[in-house]
Amino acid sequence: MPRAPEELRELVEGYLGELALTPELAPLEAPIRHGLGGKRVRPVLALASGEAVGAEAVAAVELVHSFSLVHDDLPALDNDTERRGRATVWAAYGEATAVLAGDALLGEAFRLALTYPRPDVARELVNATLAMIGGQQLDLAGGYADLAELHRLKTGALFSASVLCGLWAAGLPEGEHPPWRAFAAELGLLFQVVDDILDGDGYVLELGESKSRALADAAAERAQARLGEIDADTAVLSEIVSGLAARTS
Amino acid sequence: MPRAPEELRELVEGYLGELALTPELAPLEAPIRHGLGGKRVRPVLALASGEAVGAEAVAAVELVHSFSLVHDDLPALDNDTERRGRATVWAAYGEATAVLAGDALLGEAFRLALTYPRPDVARELVNATLAMIGGQQLDLAGGYADLAELHRLKTGALFSASVLCGLWAAGLPEGEHPPWRAFAAELGLLFQVVDDILDGDGYVLELGESKSRALADAAAERAQARLGEIDADTAVLSEIVSGLAARTS
Repeated sequence: MPRAPEELRELVEGYLGELALTPELAPLEAPIRHGLGGKRVRPVLALASGEAVGAEAVAAVELVHSFSLVHDDLPALDNDTERRGRATVWAAYGEATAVLAGDALLGEAFRLALTYPRPDVARELVNATLAMIGGQQLDLAGGYADLAELHRLKTGALFSASVLCGLWAAGLPEGEHPPWRAFAAELGLLFQVVDDILDGDGYVLELGESKSRALADAAAERAQARLGEIDADTAVLSEIVSGLAARTS
Repeated sequence: MPRAPEELRELVEGYLGELALTPELAPLEAPIRHGLGGKRVRPVLALASGEAVGAEAVAAVELVHSFSLVHDDLPALDNDTERRGRATVWAAYGEATAVLAGDALLGEAFRLALTYPRPDVARELVNATLAMIGGQQLDLAGGYADLAELHRLKTGALFSASVLCGLWAAGLPEGEHPPWRAFAAELGLLFQVVDDILDGDGYVLELGESKSRALADAAAERAQARLGEIDADTAVLSEIVSGLAARTS
């Protein structure tokens, strides 16, 4: 029987709590673990997308996400001192350590992704990471033409990779990936629009709140439709879509 | 006939000049290329260690090195505004862009290392990268017990990986790696001690200049002896060892 999203989240917490870091990273262990807090949306997606994914791919997608937050919070970027009610890594450990802790999170993510016999998980993850970094710079420098393209890079790429890493890790043949990719793209859009509604920025500034809500609902509906086209038990993913559409934090 | 180190260096420059970045990194292209300047010691080693290494592994080791320099130069770390007579990336493009350009160099390095059918090149590179980051933090926080261990992490790991990535990329069976690893370890030590002699820090502060010189010469001698144990044409590597021992910049 498929497990509920909340059970998957607990499994993810277990994986991350037991994660053994590379021994040479011992001097960075505290800031690395500090930087690993979060809602676990992406690793839950990876777990829900593939059976027998393994802890490594699941942790890897979360570590890439954490890396991006640790660097984004830096004074030179977003200059955030708090995240989820706690001090950010640089506020707690200093800027230099936060730069290195972010680097270490990214490196560890690739190390974990490379524990699989084939390089597919790591390749999927590296492409998403590069898209994300490119999106960050586009956002920083301004002058991007299209908010949807910016979000596809900044948020969508790693959302898609979370689903796809789950599939690669579980060994699903590549020929069966396309409907999953289509699903993941809708999910990334859904997540970002709801985020903007909750924060009152991005799409809300561009479209207003009610049009943004309609966009989110349409993305959720398309995501559910895509799931219907997939020849697998996607009940948990369907529950995740509903949860993301309805979330209030 | 084996090519001279200078010819290999030109080959490396060619590879790096023609390197096509991930399209999504277009907004970071200028700072990434700016951060790619250097003496090319590591990629030349990769090229000299394996035949038919391919441009990707060669570029990957140099990109990891460049990533580390771009982040080390940041105001929160070494606060360097110049490197090799040019503005550092943060001095030229701003701190935020330098954080992202460093991240991008690391990500691109893994993407390149992952173009090989087997994950060995990428695994070798990720382990070295993590050791290097751990060493940086150890240096930053102080309190390390042993200068040799610090240098093994900060410099030696990527030196070894440069040689080993060359071997993996060329498909040399793992059973033949041990004498190469022993050679690479001596080479990393040699490089670092000579660096300290040229900069008047590190080993020179700990041992004085004449003992440091003796240490470098002993490392060079052992490196040459290790090469003698390798069943391959190592004439170019022998020339590289002599060049590193005698270098004045």
